[in-house]
Amino acid sequence: MGKTKNAFYAQSGGVTAVINASACGVIETARQHREHIGKVFAGRNGIIGALSEDLIDTGKESKSAIAALRTTPSGAFGSCRYKLKSLEENRAEYQRLIDVFKAHNIGYFFYNGGGDSADTCLKVSQLSRTAGYPIQAIHIPKTVDNDLPITDNCPGFGSVAKYIAVSTREASFDVASMAKTSTKVFILEVMGRHAGWIAAAGGMASDENTPIPIVILFPEVAFDRKRFMALVDQKVKRFGYCSVVVSEGVRSSDGGFLADQGLRDAFGHAQLGGVAPVVAAMVKEDLGLKYHWAVADYLQRSARHIASASDVAHAYATGAAAVEMALAGKNAVMPTIVRLSDKPYRWKVGEASLKRVANKEKMMPRSFISSDGFGITARCRRYLEPLIRGQDYPPYHRNGLPKYVRLKNATVRKKLAESFEV
Amino acid sequence: MGKTKNAFYAQSGGVTAVINASACGVIETARQHREHIGKVFAGRNGIIGALSEDLIDTGKESKSAIAALRTTPSGAFGSCRYKLKSLEENRAEYQRLIDVFKAHNIGYFFYNGGGDSADTCLKVSQLSRTAGYPIQAIHIPKTVDNDLPITDNCPGFGSVAKYIAVSTREASFDVASMAKTSTKVFILEVMGRHAGWIAAAGGMASDENTPIPIVILFPEVAFDRKRFMALVDQKVKRFGYCSVVVSEGVRSSDGGFLADQGLRDAFGHAQLGGVAPVVAAMVKEDLGLKYHWAVADYLQRSARHIASASDVAHAYATGAAAVEMALAGKNAVMPTIVRLSDKPYRWKVGEASLKRVANKEKMMPRSFISSDGFGITARCRRYLEPLIRGQDYPPYHRNGLPKYVRLKNATVRKKLAESFEV
Repeated sequence: MGKTKNAFYAQSGGVTAVINASACGVIETARQHREHIGKVFAGRNGIIGALSEDLIDTGKESKSAIAALRTTPSGAFGSCRYKLKSLEENRAEYQRLIDVFKAHNIGYFFYNGGGDSADTCLKVSQLSRTAGYPIQAIHIPKTVDNDLPITDNCPGFGSVAKYIAVSTREASFDVASMAKTSTKVFILEVMGRHAGWIAAAGGMASDENTPIPIVILFPEVAFDRKRFMALVDQKVKRFGYCSVVVSEGVRSSDGGFLADQGLRDAFGHAQLGGVAPVVAAMVKEDLGLKYHWAVADYLQRSARHIASASDVAHAYATGAAAVEMALAGKNAVMPTIVRLSDKPYRWKVGEASLKRVANKEKMMPRSFISSDGFGITARCRRYLEPLIRGQDYPPYHRNGLPKYVRLKNATVRKKLAESFEV
Repeated sequence: MGKTKNAFYAQSGGVTAVINASACGVIETARQHREHIGKVFAGRNGIIGALSEDLIDTGKESKSAIAALRTTPSGAFGSCRYKLKSLEENRAEYQRLIDVFKAHNIGYFFYNGGGDSADTCLKVSQLSRTAGYPIQAIHIPKTVDNDLPITDNCPGFGSVAKYIAVSTREASFDVASMAKTSTKVFILEVMGRHAGWIAAAGGMASDENTPIPIVILFPEVAFDRKRFMALVDQKVKRFGYCSVVVSEGVRSSDGGFLADQGLRDAFGHAQLGGVAPVVAAMVKEDLGLKYHWAVADYLQRSARHIASASDVAHAYATGAAAVEMALAGKNAVMPTIVRLSDKPYRWKVGEASLKRVANKEKMMPRSFISSDGFGITARCRRYLEPLIRGQDYPPYHRNGLPKYVRLKNATVRKKLAESFEV
């Protein structure tokens, strides 16, 4: 082994519309520095690929296939929900990582994920010190939940926010047309179990150009049925219709999820539905209004067809910056998005110590929620607007479907005799 | 009153992403023939606007506002669900229509809707004969259900189909990334209470370039839990994951809606949820697989941001053709889409007699459903492909939201003394 080391890249946790744009940034930048970074191996299904020595040789992918990652949603190498235990709890896992890294001459570890992944990445970054294996670990931020600290925003969030803002505007136009004789309330359930970032994006559907009556139910604000119904009633009376954006994580005043309404099927089995149908049924019961409801679920985070251009740019830039940080000899850091100004929107890539990132959740500031608890403030709008700005359309096939790349994902020949159970 | 007559245009029933493109076709074409068509009045909230003499003067809208209708979803003048009774049952309604038409010198009646609306339009077309009031009534096809006869397809359907095909592909990429340690089955509920046209569009997500394991549940095929589970299980075993597209109208073998599972809340009240959570719970129960589900609801029919270019073209063309038919002296007809060839896709506008359209539902041919009942055939693909082809993006504001027009919708001064209760 010479000066040249190989790199390991993996995707972790829930995927997004732009996590592959980060992968694209990593691989394209690494390819420009072959004198330092030999190969980029991707973990098949995240860190599990490292543990099981199931590595993908991204060098087998053509330039155009890698470029196409920029416009392809989801995790091209597979992701996983798997959190490494602490070194004390599971030394075998870390030893296995070292064995695999050593066998494949891996000196750079790029981990693309959220808070849990940042913790894993931090642990790996400490292997030089704790286990004497020289490795540089760089975390690349990714999460639709937008809950990583320090960075202004998380790649992945902007595109979900844009999808929810656009969809809320469109569905609101629909219900407005129908309200005279039919549906008067439309309820859209969005992701965000702990923080209302995505729900807040629904509020962006309404602006000075296009005012829309929208009521938002945040996980940060305990559900007050009476006050909620009064507001919906008022808006329907005034505008003829109302849209409701409800976070999956909304809780009742007793602290339980509103979605968990003790539904039972014909056989008495408990059924956990979404929260949108629960709110819809309440609207019908309390106000007697005709409703429609939707649950966007995976559609919102995979909607590359309406990705935000700034989000794609952030995702690519943080991937590219991670490689540059590695080349600059850094370890245990994460590239961040630093906002320089709102209008015009200017940003740059910054750097955060992983210790300050791992296992910390950034909540939405209370100043982003309007005083009545059902809307967003001007400050929130100022924050969100640049993140949903610009369209970055994928290419399409002649048959009308988006051209999303599937890589060859060629497996690297195993070098270790032992397998490893995860 | 001279030779010039005014026109009445109204939108009816559930709105679509492109019904305003038809309105645009009507108004722009009428404006080119001011010597014959004086003003175009739109009914506020469909036919209710005619009955209550609540007319909108589209002449007050600028050229650019009317042009913007082509890229704005929903019904710009408001729609309604209201079916005129027969002349025998409710003569007063027809007399009122004649009074309003006469007062506003209306000689052309353009009605933009589905099967029920075609019936209303037919009744209006007969007023010349039945009530001696000279009027030409032309129906403009619109329905996401794609169930009007004679026309090759219905404007509105192609865009929903594209949305469902694109979304199914995107969510399938997502679940494929997650399947190793998390979600293995993704279930998307789509519209279509009687016919599986929209569900079939989900099958388009998979093609030669991008094969995806998809199981479709059609309203035309009674739900067979055992066979469905066997297929899902097989696909998950082979591909690691599976996507399910389920029509809201799927029925059990006893004929009841599968969505109606006798759910009860904590107080014993019946809860009608969607069918997606019902199928999801069954997948969990029978196969023990982790699932996610989504209900697209209004999002699918209002998604102008991903409208199909051919659908927009069809919608505009049928609107424009309706005016040309009126100018050619026709009555009781509907412009249709005539397919001339699949590859290359070529089409023209044809003409159908309203008598052959009204109250007839076009079901999906059995030859479009694969022999196992869970997929689409090559013939179905050949039919659907041209309808979802091409992207026709709306313009966007600088803040990242689509620029959808809201008209002034200036009310025409009432001329009748009496009001009319609908």
